[in-house]
Amino acid sequence: MNYAVNICYKGPDFCGYQLQPKGRTVAGEIRTALAELCGSYTDLAGCSRTDSGVHANDYCFSFKTEKALSPDIVVRALNNKLPSDIRVKSCRYADDDFHARYSVKAKEYLYVIYNGEFQSPFYADFSHHYPKPLDIEYLNQAAKEFVGTHDFSAFKAAGSKDVDPVRTIYSASFERKGDTVEFRICGDGFLYKMVRLTVGCLLKVAEGKIPPESIADMLSTGKNILPYTVEAKGLFLNKVLYE
Amino acid sequence: MNYAVNICYKGPDFCGYQLQPKGRTVAGEIRTALAELCGSYTDLAGCSRTDSGVHANDYCFSFKTEKALSPDIVVRALNNKLPSDIRVKSCRYADDDFHARYSVKAKEYLYVIYNGEFQSPFYADFSHHYPKPLDIEYLNQAAKEFVGTHDFSAFKAAGSKDVDPVRTIYSASFERKGDTVEFRICGDGFLYKMVRLTVGCLLKVAEGKIPPESIADMLSTGKNILPYTVEAKGLFLNKVLYE
Repeated sequence: MNYAVNICYKGPDFCGYQLQPKGRTVAGEIRTALAELCGSYTDLAGCSRTDSGVHANDYCFSFKTEKALSPDIVVRALNNKLPSDIRVKSCRYADDDFHARYSVKAKEYLYVIYNGEFQSPFYADFSHHYPKPLDIEYLNQAAKEFVGTHDFSAFKAAGSKDVDPVRTIYSASFERKGDTVEFRICGDGFLYKMVRLTVGCLLKVAEGKIPPESIADMLSTGKNILPYTVEAKGLFLNKVLYE
Repeated sequence: MNYAVNICYKGPDFCGYQLQPKGRTVAGEIRTALAELCGSYTDLAGCSRTDSGVHANDYCFSFKTEKALSPDIVVRALNNKLPSDIRVKSCRYADDDFHARYSVKAKEYLYVIYNGEFQSPFYADFSHHYPKPLDIEYLNQAAKEFVGTHDFSAFKAAGSKDVDPVRTIYSASFERKGDTVEFRICGDGFLYKMVRLTVGCLLKVAEGKIPPESIADMLSTGKNILPYTVEAKGLFLNKVLYE
């Protein structure tokens, strides 16, 4: 049987989702827990890589096992076995050809900016602190430049293994919620550190260091005039959408 | 000059607000920072004790110093000197007879219950996990029993140094916000662990282990039929009100 499992996790104590030769990873914890639960399983796949320190509000992985387990049992048993910084939210039976990575239609990332003058102790682990005033309307105008199908070479980090730099962004916008400002971006895929470079660019636009018109130029030339990668701790994989 | 300073702090790494012979305290950090800022100061007073692990969204302390400092400078300088789990939110000049503890008119505490089936990694440090369904209307009916002027002997912990157990509660109510349930209680003062014993009692009411009618009995007899103190990490000193 093929299972799709939705989880959330808090990033600080993980070297990202993806298994690493060294260092604690979300995938590593899941493998251990699945081995205990199922004995043997195959085709474990996560919906995405996430960088060291990045959080997930909703991340999906899939796996197959011969062992007959109800989705409810999978949820409870994995929550018993997993450490408290990963929680299983739900599990369902999936079609045999469902694959958490290859079946993804769209992903939404959330980036949280703490916009109070002094960083709140309660947001310190979950946001990037930006103390200066932010004009949300102005930022939303600039964010629209990213929407559409573009070559995002200017917004990927060195070390990217992505061969095709073309992605489609469906929406990108900011919203103020008290002292926090939330940026949501939804697309069919994202290059390595693309979201953090996008937010970094938009904060440079806010500061007047990048004119909003330059975003279109950067997308067409593939050159980032002032690359700035905001901190991992403000980033959440927020939703992953399938058919 | 007498100053009133509003701060917030995250509880886990403190043995409470109050100075202790051993252990890191909020007052201890403030003393160190004030000594660096002012050289000498007098009459440092916090608005309240808070227990080990309890948070504050809005806590007020007052102090006097001969050094001429604008409130803005106090905010910035203290934030530079204080550790990141304490943040100064604001500072103002206060009348000479203002005293953060003796001038308090009312305090509001917030208690956060995480009511999802599995504790969220993001709320784990800031809430008490209660996985069973909660009927907010039923809880609010029961919470009303605490409102008014009562002898709260049944809702104080052993070790309390409070001589007079009579307090006036102005309001007490629950509110659901997604997977969290927030309890707010406002009163002229609170006995040792009174808020956590009150929330504990109301959760026992939710479970059917204490009939709501018993609250009035416990208040009149001074005997708690099933004392239960919920965790410190869900508790926030939320507001402190002066004239």
